[in-house]
Amino acid sequence: MAPADPSAKKRKTGDQASEEGAIHIPNPHLEKIKEDFLYHFALGTATHDFPALFGDVKFVCVGGSPSRMKNFISFIAEDLGIGSPGSDHPNICAGTDRYAMYKVGPVLSVSHGMGIPSIAIMLHELIKLLYYAKCSNVIIVRIGTSGGIGLEPGSVVITRQSVDATFKPQLEQVILGKSVFRSTALDKELAEELMECGKELKQFNTVTGNTMCTLDFYEGQARLDGAICSYSEEEKMQYLKSAYEAGVRNIEMESSVFAALCNLSGLRGAVVCVTLLNRLEGDQITTPHEVLKEYQTRPQKLVGHFIKKHLGKQ
Amino acid sequence: MAPADPSAKKRKTGDQASEEGAIHIPNPHLEKIKEDFLYHFALGTATHDFPALFGDVKFVCVGGSPSRMKNFISFIAEDLGIGSPGSDHPNICAGTDRYAMYKVGPVLSVSHGMGIPSIAIMLHELIKLLYYAKCSNVIIVRIGTSGGIGLEPGSVVITRQSVDATFKPQLEQVILGKSVFRSTALDKELAEELMECGKELKQFNTVTGNTMCTLDFYEGQARLDGAICSYSEEEKMQYLKSAYEAGVRNIEMESSVFAALCNLSGLRGAVVCVTLLNRLEGDQITTPHEVLKEYQTRPQKLVGHFIKKHLGKQ
Repeated sequence: MAPADPSAKKRKTGDQASEEGAIHIPNPHLEKIKEDFLYHFALGTATHDFPALFGDVKFVCVGGSPSRMKNFISFIAEDLGIGSPGSDHPNICAGTDRYAMYKVGPVLSVSHGMGIPSIAIMLHELIKLLYYAKCSNVIIVRIGTSGGIGLEPGSVVITRQSVDATFKPQLEQVILGKSVFRSTALDKELAEELMECGKELKQFNTVTGNTMCTLDFYEGQARLDGAICSYSEEEKMQYLKSAYEAGVRNIEMESSVFAALCNLSGLRGAVVCVTLLNRLEGDQITTPHEVLKEYQTRPQKLVGHFIKKHLGKQ
Repeated sequence: MAPADPSAKKRKTGDQASEEGAIHIPNPHLEKIKEDFLYHFALGTATHDFPALFGDVKFVCVGGSPSRMKNFISFIAEDLGIGSPGSDHPNICAGTDRYAMYKVGPVLSVSHGMGIPSIAIMLHELIKLLYYAKCSNVIIVRIGTSGGIGLEPGSVVITRQSVDATFKPQLEQVILGKSVFRSTALDKELAEELMECGKELKQFNTVTGNTMCTLDFYEGQARLDGAICSYSEEEKMQYLKSAYEAGVRNIEMESSVFAALCNLSGLRGAVVCVTLLNRLEGDQITTPHEVLKEYQTRPQKLVGHFIKKHLGKQ
């Protein structure tokens, strides 16, 4: 049997905190730390006034690519009518090249690199940042890219639950050498609200589905075109079809730890990814660059619409 | 019992290939692909002449941070006396911001981001790149940063073997939903040769030891300063001391898959990381920025010395 997550007891507190809208930090040691340096952001409580810099943040959007997250902040600034068009948005994490961070009004945009470990480092430091800034009622959305299963390329998938490579809604987290399993369920109401936004926009195919989160892009996602492959095309297709039957509509590499850390910190989180290809038809991403670029704006447009609705601008 | 790795049978061929110095690709499907687009490098066999661009590569150095890998190429160009001092080295992967790649003479420098999934994507595409370029006798070294155990900060650790969070020299790789375990042993002779370079340089403390590779920076490395922590300081110290007793001298997040993919493709690989702090004394990296910057040049200096020796320039 899977051992229980030692942080699970504290989740109750997390739920209470979430009702009040505050960020919950299930770590009693943090109280003893006088100064906290968020190393991978190059930001510290001793050198930066977090409440002044970030206290008004209500929406955090995260995605793998730093340039995409910079494009997003320009897009949302224009969309919300904040700042002058074409004005440059400085990278708040300019002291490091691990992540890039941009802010406009109540919206924070942060890159997270590729894979569970990379986004996990970012989220630990982001959750602490929001906590030190005394933010409340924050909604966080991952706007990413993914491989689709049985969907036309360019479709946008809003994740119902993130599942692992055996289609279970859980994340295996190794703590002091022992595995604990954490829930990867996401906020249902938030997913429904985002789905509603997709329907209102009517600009591209938007669906809800399970998202498979893997630790590897090639063998972990049953691709035939990596440097190493030990299975046949039939075995690949069988695996992807089993995933489809388990409700999986897209595959990416960050959603499980995103969901798990949202649950533990009382953040309302959603995952909105565009599919760049249909994995039942191939492994390589051969769509022209310009078409891919347009696809990548789709989650941004959907989340932009959602933010405007929340701010009463729609 | 751990299931055997299905690629293991092919490793024999890999060893033979490695004897001849060629890159081995244990993937029969690749023969059928007419054009291969290395998506995360934005380089393709249809648009780029790989043998002309990369055929002379003999040394590949990889590290997490793109700016550090750019600094490395400038450093090695000057050290080898190739190109004019201060000249700019263009990013070969300018078409994407997933990774950065630089080349000078026989040396390729590539960034890989943070964590096993991120470096694994890069390595799959790098191994294919070297294969298409018909490279032979390539040596690959990860020059990175890490947390030390029981070493003074700034020490350089040459990895004997990469071990997981239970101190076993293996990588769990999930393929089609099933776990296989791969060896994370590294090239012994290469490690010894690098250790010899450290002794010759005499500029900093250089040791050999096991390197623990984790999937998480905070809970996965027994830190007390993440957003989430469910264990006590005593439990943390006990875990780190057990790691030390198992021969672990530093902790990072990429070496296991690096070693596993080197073994499968017949590449000779080494891991050379500087320690930024002593984890028995704390979790936060509080060393001044300028000191950290100097620490980060140490693996570069060591590997620079090694490359010069190999090229008969020392």
